[in-house]
Amino acid sequence: MRERLPFDHLDDRLARAAWSRLAEPEDRAATRLVAALGAGPALDWLLHAERGLYPAVPVPPPRGNWGTAAARWAPRLAGLDPRRELEVIARRGGELILPGSRAWPVGLDDLGECAPLCLWVIGARDPATLAASSVALVGSRASTAYGERVAADLAMGVQPKDITVVSGGAYGIDAAAHRATLSVDGPALAVMAGGLDRYYPNGNTRLLEQVAATGAVVAEAPPGTAPMRTRFLSRNRLIAALARATVVVEAAWRSGALSTASRAAGLFRPVGAVPGPVTSAASAGAHRLIRESGAICVTDAAEVAELVQPVGTALPEEPAVAAGLLDDLDGEQARVLDALPARGGAVFGAVVRSAGMDEVSVRAALGFLELSGRVTREGGAWRRARVRG
Amino acid sequence: MRERLPFDHLDDRLARAAWSRLAEPEDRAATRLVAALGAGPALDWLLHAERGLYPAVPVPPPRGNWGTAAARWAPRLAGLDPRRELEVIARRGGELILPGSRAWPVGLDDLGECAPLCLWVIGARDPATLAASSVALVGSRASTAYGERVAADLAMGVQPKDITVVSGGAYGIDAAAHRATLSVDGPALAVMAGGLDRYYPNGNTRLLEQVAATGAVVAEAPPGTAPMRTRFLSRNRLIAALARATVVVEAAWRSGALSTASRAAGLFRPVGAVPGPVTSAASAGAHRLIRESGAICVTDAAEVAELVQPVGTALPEEPAVAAGLLDDLDGEQARVLDALPARGGAVFGAVVRSAGMDEVSVRAALGFLELSGRVTREGGAWRRARVRG
Repeated sequence: MRERLPFDHLDDRLARAAWSRLAEPEDRAATRLVAALGAGPALDWLLHAERGLYPAVPVPPPRGNWGTAAARWAPRLAGLDPRRELEVIARRGGELILPGSRAWPVGLDDLGECAPLCLWVIGARDPATLAASSVALVGSRASTAYGERVAADLAMGVQPKDITVVSGGAYGIDAAAHRATLSVDGPALAVMAGGLDRYYPNGNTRLLEQVAATGAVVAEAPPGTAPMRTRFLSRNRLIAALARATVVVEAAWRSGALSTASRAAGLFRPVGAVPGPVTSAASAGAHRLIRESGAICVTDAAEVAELVQPVGTALPEEPAVAAGLLDDLDGEQARVLDALPARGGAVFGAVVRSAGMDEVSVRAALGFLELSGRVTREGGAWRRARVRG
Repeated sequence: MRERLPFDHLDDRLARAAWSRLAEPEDRAATRLVAALGAGPALDWLLHAERGLYPAVPVPPPRGNWGTAAARWAPRLAGLDPRRELEVIARRGGELILPGSRAWPVGLDDLGECAPLCLWVIGARDPATLAASSVALVGSRASTAYGERVAADLAMGVQPKDITVVSGGAYGIDAAAHRATLSVDGPALAVMAGGLDRYYPNGNTRLLEQVAATGAVVAEAPPGTAPMRTRFLSRNRLIAALARATVVVEAAWRSGALSTASRAAGLFRPVGAVPGPVTSAASAGAHRLIRESGAICVTDAAEVAELVQPVGTALPEEPAVAAGLLDDLDGEQARVLDALPARGGAVFGAVVRSAGMDEVSVRAALGFLELSGRVTREGGAWRRARVRG
């Protein structure tokens, strides 16, 4: 029991930092209380609640009553002091960003009551700018060489369009996407499930430091928060909300990446998935998304860019294909060309019978084919021209 | 100029056989004339037309006038004698099947005026029975080992459901599908672009003989017809119409298999496509179908069977996946389990703070976790149970 907190809890910055410690991600009761009272007065309310006093709240809680909500927040009041966490983030060159500030990525607001109360950030660029044109490339930690290659191709391929690559900093697809982005000096944004006092996983520390040095690493939990498994699922909603589109590069039948896709779909953001061999279990989740969830089949960077940008501004080009012998021919012309023997020549009557067309049409078609250099006439016989280089 | 034909041209069987020689596939004027007058009287009409007499036809031609249509058929009257072709097919153990007969696959009628006038068949089983439950597995001749393997897996995988595999007898995917079907004694149906006097391509002669020996090989063109390139495109509509569903296993950006898919879609038959590596040009057409044409992403035989059979009768089973540690846990139980340290134990208050939940909920969750063997209590501390074998 305490009557006051060791910091100025009516300071909005300190109060929101405190709430990011008290409430787990997606605690809609906390978001609603803070929205109704303000972050500082909501702390006041909690102090009262801890002593068994429940000042009136002008809105009902999402479920149950405000007392049970207070009961899950109050145990964390012990030792609460967000000034320490702000010091930690500042020492690492980072800062706390509040909703409504210039650096706040507005896409997060689409989460409604599941939006984070604040954002802890370490980065060279602000998250709002980074997220403005961005795509999440996510996938399994248990990735294959194929998946990592495709992730890298896509991440590098969207860079000419200055699209930020958002991912979760995990091993596998996430790391491949981040690494490829950095390799071409592209903008990178990593979203952590735990606090930014240290990066997770440990083996990607160096990579995430580089992401922070050119783009940004963000988290909703304060420094000192361990990346528990349930926090990864909550973290995925931030990836989905920060990015304009989400692409699952490689995911097994059950994979956390599918939850990111699901959250993106719930936000009406475009969701793409990269196909792979049906013989690869690592692609089963991506295929499932395409087959059952309406995810768009994405096969190259141009198609990724198309998801991010308004239709028409980034139409992928049709791959260059060698022109075929029948290109530009109408049906009758193609049929007459087909009717000519592969070797040697054929008289006009034979071509007519072989093509199964009337004489006038055959004559017209032969004329066109001759003009376009596809057939030649020698003596009374029509023959195919030598294949052009 | 001739006044009569060397055979009984008012015999419907002979007359239709004759028309399959006179008219190219998808000659809607021929189909319409035969439908309006009957096959024999239509030959009568053509004999008159050849002499410059045009008896009235009760329907207009699809385009132009009946004279131009006659001009493309008449050149083939020279030497016309379907009795020869019926002899050839009989010698090979085959027969001519007419629309409306018991052996006629009714799916062909969905082609309307593009339906074939008759069907030349060599086979142990009749096409109607074979086509009743069937799927077309089609794809590139320039297939990869991956594509051939998947074609074989799918062809063999649908056999327990007695689904006929329909294909075009070509090298590559077609051959892989036929071969795999035969390997498990499944019903096979091959559709040729040329006449059945010899099989095309030559290198698949043995394979197609085996298809005929257990299933059937069919063509709309009479024996002696060369498989010209345009006839392959027309042939594809027969594959699409014979099969209840069409699946493109592997197809490049431009591939004849895409035309089969397009014809199937035009007939409102289900179209599936098998994804592959995005790095493989051989799968680009299949991805294009999924991405742009609404083809269903198909990854295994159960999903192919689902296309063929009414929804609900062949629901694919979810692949077996190893049960995870968090399976069957609700959100709060999972969160409490997550809140326990990986090693060592935690007192109740620490679990409450770590989980960010109220004490009552934590106690309930710990109770469930203990009962289900996931956590143990030792002294005052809760700890994770050893991972179960």
